[in-house]
Amino acid sequence: MRKRVTLKDVAAALGVHVSTVSRALDPKTRHLITPEVAEQVVAASERLGYRPNAAAYSLKTNRTRTIGVIVPDITNPVFPPIFRGADDALMRHSYIAILGNTDSSLRREAAIVDTLLARGVEGLIMASVTANDSVVGRLAQEGLPMVTVNRRVDDAGIASVAHDEREGVRRILTHLASLGHRRIAAIAGPQDLSTGRSRHQAFLEYRAAMGLAEDDGLVVFAGGFTDAEGERCAEELLARDRGFTALVCANDLLAIGAIAALRRRRLSCPEDVSVTGYNDMPLADRLFPPLTTIRVEQYRAGHAAADLLIEMLAERSGSAEPAPARHIVLPVEMVIRGSTQALPAVSVARGRAKA
Amino acid sequence: MRKRVTLKDVAAALGVHVSTVSRALDPKTRHLITPEVAEQVVAASERLGYRPNAAAYSLKTNRTRTIGVIVPDITNPVFPPIFRGADDALMRHSYIAILGNTDSSLRREAAIVDTLLARGVEGLIMASVTANDSVVGRLAQEGLPMVTVNRRVDDAGIASVAHDEREGVRRILTHLASLGHRRIAAIAGPQDLSTGRSRHQAFLEYRAAMGLAEDDGLVVFAGGFTDAEGERCAEELLARDRGFTALVCANDLLAIGAIAALRRRRLSCPEDVSVTGYNDMPLADRLFPPLTTIRVEQYRAGHAAADLLIEMLAERSGSAEPAPARHIVLPVEMVIRGSTQALPAVSVARGRAKA
Repeated sequence: MRKRVTLKDVAAALGVHVSTVSRALDPKTRHLITPEVAEQVVAASERLGYRPNAAAYSLKTNRTRTIGVIVPDITNPVFPPIFRGADDALMRHSYIAILGNTDSSLRREAAIVDTLLARGVEGLIMASVTANDSVVGRLAQEGLPMVTVNRRVDDAGIASVAHDEREGVRRILTHLASLGHRRIAAIAGPQDLSTGRSRHQAFLEYRAAMGLAEDDGLVVFAGGFTDAEGERCAEELLARDRGFTALVCANDLLAIGAIAALRRRRLSCPEDVSVTGYNDMPLADRLFPPLTTIRVEQYRAGHAAADLLIEMLAERSGSAEPAPARHIVLPVEMVIRGSTQALPAVSVARGRAKA
Repeated sequence: MRKRVTLKDVAAALGVHVSTVSRALDPKTRHLITPEVAEQVVAASERLGYRPNAAAYSLKTNRTRTIGVIVPDITNPVFPPIFRGADDALMRHSYIAILGNTDSSLRREAAIVDTLLARGVEGLIMASVTANDSVVGRLAQEGLPMVTVNRRVDDAGIASVAHDEREGVRRILTHLASLGHRRIAAIAGPQDLSTGRSRHQAFLEYRAAMGLAEDDGLVVFAGGFTDAEGERCAEELLARDRGFTALVCANDLLAIGAIAALRRRRLSCPEDVSVTGYNDMPLADRLFPPLTTIRVEQYRAGHAAADLLIEMLAERSGSAEPAPARHIVLPVEMVIRGSTQALPAVSVARGRAKA
């Protein structure tokens, strides 16, 4: 087995005391020894392949410079850019990220958090939280620095970086209304997630404010943000036969599933039903039809969450009194593509409308 | 700042020696003390919120139970399932994965590897390697356990988990030939990556063996496995005007870009040109047209790579003589969808054929 080169090995090779080597290699203490010796030590440590031991550093300073980043599932295309943004920001400050996948299970989330705490993570970036997350509540009580990203918890005491969901939904409805749509159906996201809930609340609010058809039968709730749930919900909407010319989906995967369900019923998008997504995930522009959606800057959100967490860690080590939790809201952008078009279009769904 | 509860705190709370606490909490030494005391220690450590310190464990055992997983870019849809598979396997063995993104830069790869080594990783899973990777060569000399996944290096001494690339290409060409295609163009992947190279070599070999048109002008080399490169290469192929009825792309993203380029030239897939991808990445079935491709089990590859690395680590701590490097080749599957169809079809590209 490969033997790790230690400070002792470097000291032995030069015939000096180990404390000399230690001082020579630390920029903060290098001035305590002569430049000639310092130079010899640096050269010898490079020649021998000495690398500082992070575990020893961590025990000495009680700092691991390690941050946990927790996502529901890194294979869901929303999360890689969030992780990447956070990782890039952390690297710049010599922190390292450990990624955990919860599979949206609170039990798994708790287990991962325990593992990360045993590893001495100094803080957490959480993209996996439910609005009323018991794991986050427990960690907050323990005083662990935390930032939620993309989603929020109800507790305003937990810092967050999220997107302007209300503005995103307002733009979608304005766009559809300007195209002449009045009966607009919706596939809402899971209501225990802040994204699903705030998008749905904004939908109800702006639908009323814009004088669009207010019909409870036009809304179906998805159990998850997946294309399979999009298919199921679109089937349910079609089976209810209440007539609609546009369909607002709470994310892109739901929209992809919904378009597939429409196609199976020989309805086409956008000719029969205009469909919108949310997120502008990778390849949303390569789908058929290319998806009209709201662009959310996930990379930027991850980066901002890491920056905020690093700030919080610096403040903690500086003062006794923690600052109140900050909440960063990032702007969104509307991307109009081929999945929406103006009425009147001969629409099978509309032909069945009762209103 | 939150104060970490230590073994000493637990000992003080119970009025026992710290070594008693240490023994009580380790299943291997618990038998050395009375069951009653052990029970009290466990109860007190839970009440006080004691968590073992990974840094102390690591210094004592010289094992961090940490593995580095290095990918080019986690936001490329090929890599999340590889990471997820590796992470799931590592978690089962109480290892933790640290993910690094190289952006396909050898310099960045070297910097990340250095950071991970300073953190004491016990081994590496590398999905980022070039065929002739100098970083891997250096680490191999140091004796660091390593497994490459999805890709390989030329050095057969480095363990790998890869896919049967030759078989994948053979199936694609058999499929296209059975549909009547004879002039088959190709967008080859980067030739410094084992995947790009072995797919291209198999293409040349089976093209000859099946009696298909052997024309150097029918092959363009992409600088990267991206949709932008797919567009550029398809444009170049069309500009050469050598006529082809099918286009074999070295991965799905290249195929997506190629189909977009065809569409811009008012050529449709599959009516004018059949197009194939490689990987069966997420949403390949949701594209228009749904992509005919080779299914590669990335999750399984990541899982197998982690299993292999854990085996290697166990062998190392057991014996002085390391076993020869193992190479696992996973089978592939053909997925036939809407982007390929039989000749004769009225084909603009074919109409221009010189052969």
